[in-house]
Amino acid sequence: MSYHHPENDPKYIGLNVNAGIEKPEAVNADSVSRFLKKGKRAILSANEYFEGILQGNITILSQAVTLVESSKPEHQLVAQEIIIKCLPHAGKSVRLGITGVPGAGKSTFIEALGKHITGQGGKLAVLAIDPSSERSKGSILGDKTRMEELSSDPNAYIRPSPSAGSLGGVARKTREIIILCEAAGFSTIFIETVGVGQSETVVHSMVDFFLLLQIAGAGDELQGIKRGIMEMADAIVINKADGDNLEKAQLAAAQFRNALHLFPPTGSGWSPPVLTCSALENKGVQQAWKVVNEYVAMTGENGYFLNRRSDQARYWMYETINETLRNNFYQNPLVKPKLHHYEKLVLDNGMSSFIAAHELLATYFKSIGNK
Amino acid sequence: MSYHHPENDPKYIGLNVNAGIEKPEAVNADSVSRFLKKGKRAILSANEYFEGILQGNITILSQAVTLVESSKPEHQLVAQEIIIKCLPHAGKSVRLGITGVPGAGKSTFIEALGKHITGQGGKLAVLAIDPSSERSKGSILGDKTRMEELSSDPNAYIRPSPSAGSLGGVARKTREIIILCEAAGFSTIFIETVGVGQSETVVHSMVDFFLLLQIAGAGDELQGIKRGIMEMADAIVINKADGDNLEKAQLAAAQFRNALHLFPPTGSGWSPPVLTCSALENKGVQQAWKVVNEYVAMTGENGYFLNRRSDQARYWMYETINETLRNNFYQNPLVKPKLHHYEKLVLDNGMSSFIAAHELLATYFKSIGNK
Repeated sequence: MSYHHPENDPKYIGLNVNAGIEKPEAVNADSVSRFLKKGKRAILSANEYFEGILQGNITILSQAVTLVESSKPEHQLVAQEIIIKCLPHAGKSVRLGITGVPGAGKSTFIEALGKHITGQGGKLAVLAIDPSSERSKGSILGDKTRMEELSSDPNAYIRPSPSAGSLGGVARKTREIIILCEAAGFSTIFIETVGVGQSETVVHSMVDFFLLLQIAGAGDELQGIKRGIMEMADAIVINKADGDNLEKAQLAAAQFRNALHLFPPTGSGWSPPVLTCSALENKGVQQAWKVVNEYVAMTGENGYFLNRRSDQARYWMYETINETLRNNFYQNPLVKPKLHHYEKLVLDNGMSSFIAAHELLATYFKSIGNK
Repeated sequence: MSYHHPENDPKYIGLNVNAGIEKPEAVNADSVSRFLKKGKRAILSANEYFEGILQGNITILSQAVTLVESSKPEHQLVAQEIIIKCLPHAGKSVRLGITGVPGAGKSTFIEALGKHITGQGGKLAVLAIDPSSERSKGSILGDKTRMEELSSDPNAYIRPSPSAGSLGGVARKTREIIILCEAAGFSTIFIETVGVGQSETVVHSMVDFFLLLQIAGAGDELQGIKRGIMEMADAIVINKADGDNLEKAQLAAAQFRNALHLFPPTGSGWSPPVLTCSALENKGVQQAWKVVNEYVAMTGENGYFLNRRSDQARYWMYETINETLRNNFYQNPLVKPKLHHYEKLVLDNGMSSFIAAHELLATYFKSIGNK
């Protein structure tokens, strides 16, 4: 059912044991790397990863990203250490969220815009958040095979969505990967997502600019009009404005412009423009990038750019707290084996959901109070 | 910013100290009532409230609801005891969620439908969830002055939205008030909400039937097409189908019927109908009630009615757990005074949101581990 979203479901929540977050006092680079080298696969020390990342070594960056994505506690310990080292070197990119329904031509658009950026001497990292990837086992987003040119570009780094865990967990990992990419010198970060569920909100919470990619006449009059998503957009780009479709795209752009007028003005003073483009024919893509740069210049001047980042940092402080609280509960060794039992009592025996929650909470607080 | 919703904000979370939920072992009706009678206002024992509620005494029900809504720990202790006593007598009503934008005529519709229900011998409780009421200090929903006839009907009980706390907190209190109303013999419960934000999802998570009230040509082509809300609807009713507006309402109904066809079929086997009505002229209201009863009969037979309630109970088990975990953290006496300090470090001094979260979590877990 629609209100039973994965964030509340321990089956999803439980997949990421972020030991590094829960026990920051235990992080010690030397002891960790010694410990890990005893294992089967010798990996680098946190400091070696950090040095490699700072030098822009993509192989080492990729390995560090793999550690961030790993759910193994020993990997998380190193990953957290790397992130803490990289933090002072992060924050200097422009982070661009790109969303659109399947069929809107996101890959083609990202490839065209990405080539334009690297062609101007920029370094681009393309990340993705795909909440469905857990089920489909293997991300459909950020797929290198769909961005052939960009994936062979030495100034572009393409990384698919972390594939395991709750949307909240995937989001946290992506935030951490942004830090690593920025420390590695990437000047632009794309975060791609698909137009479903809550993933847009999550992407919006970590980017400087949110671009909504649309197409005209997709045969479903509802798809363009998700108010919540339109309200988040800093620009709407109607793709596939080519051939027979050109006129329809221009009409759609006019409709979107009218629709945007209905929204209250944004806090940034920025009026989200509606553009048309043909990523396939490489038309209008440069214009989209110009708009992003205009936004960055304007909000940099009026202070909104940094305010938005501050708001996001505060939001992520609370998100990290809330996610850790949930993880600690649902992964608690005394709670975990009882969860299914109480869920069954609620479902099959009419036990009150309040009483079941009380008893599980009593187990948890007794357990951590006795440590 | 739109992603910074109150659920994650300790300023909102912190308003409800639900001591009864956190320390269920401490609930003891006799000791509690003795304790309370020492105070300035003598209140009844949990058992006296329970007996009064079972007898359908509206004055006592109202007092018990006030205890549920109270944020005082001593009130919460009695409230939780009353709820636990009422639980075996609850669950026998039809719970109907009603949403619609301001101006859709919800009050008039609820009054007309309510009079129809009590006219057939039913007993009706009208509750409301208004997440904005904290700010506006005083609920605009469930307002008795807007339902004159119904509010003087001895078989109707109208209660405004609990006014303090997060949406999650208000939702939990409303769930608890439903239990009390059902134990008091109300056969139908309306939960009214306004068409904003996440309140519909919350109402949907506690009702058997979700009715979306609409009007034709409200001048904003976006308002009718919030896909998420339409997908939740078990029926759409176009109100104000009267006078000059009749034809427009019928046209709107046809458009909604088309739009509904785009959605995947529901798990219940039920096809949400689109009706027109004029609550003002009392036309079509009976038909809406007939639809609700058809739904209850059909889903009662195919098992979906009880499955939906089970899913909701499971959802509320996890919601209660997650809300209690957050409350315990944000109300912790060692954490609470530090929150603002760390938020400031993140906002003004560029401290990483991860590090701030780590340090607050370390404070919390150290504090509860030493109890």
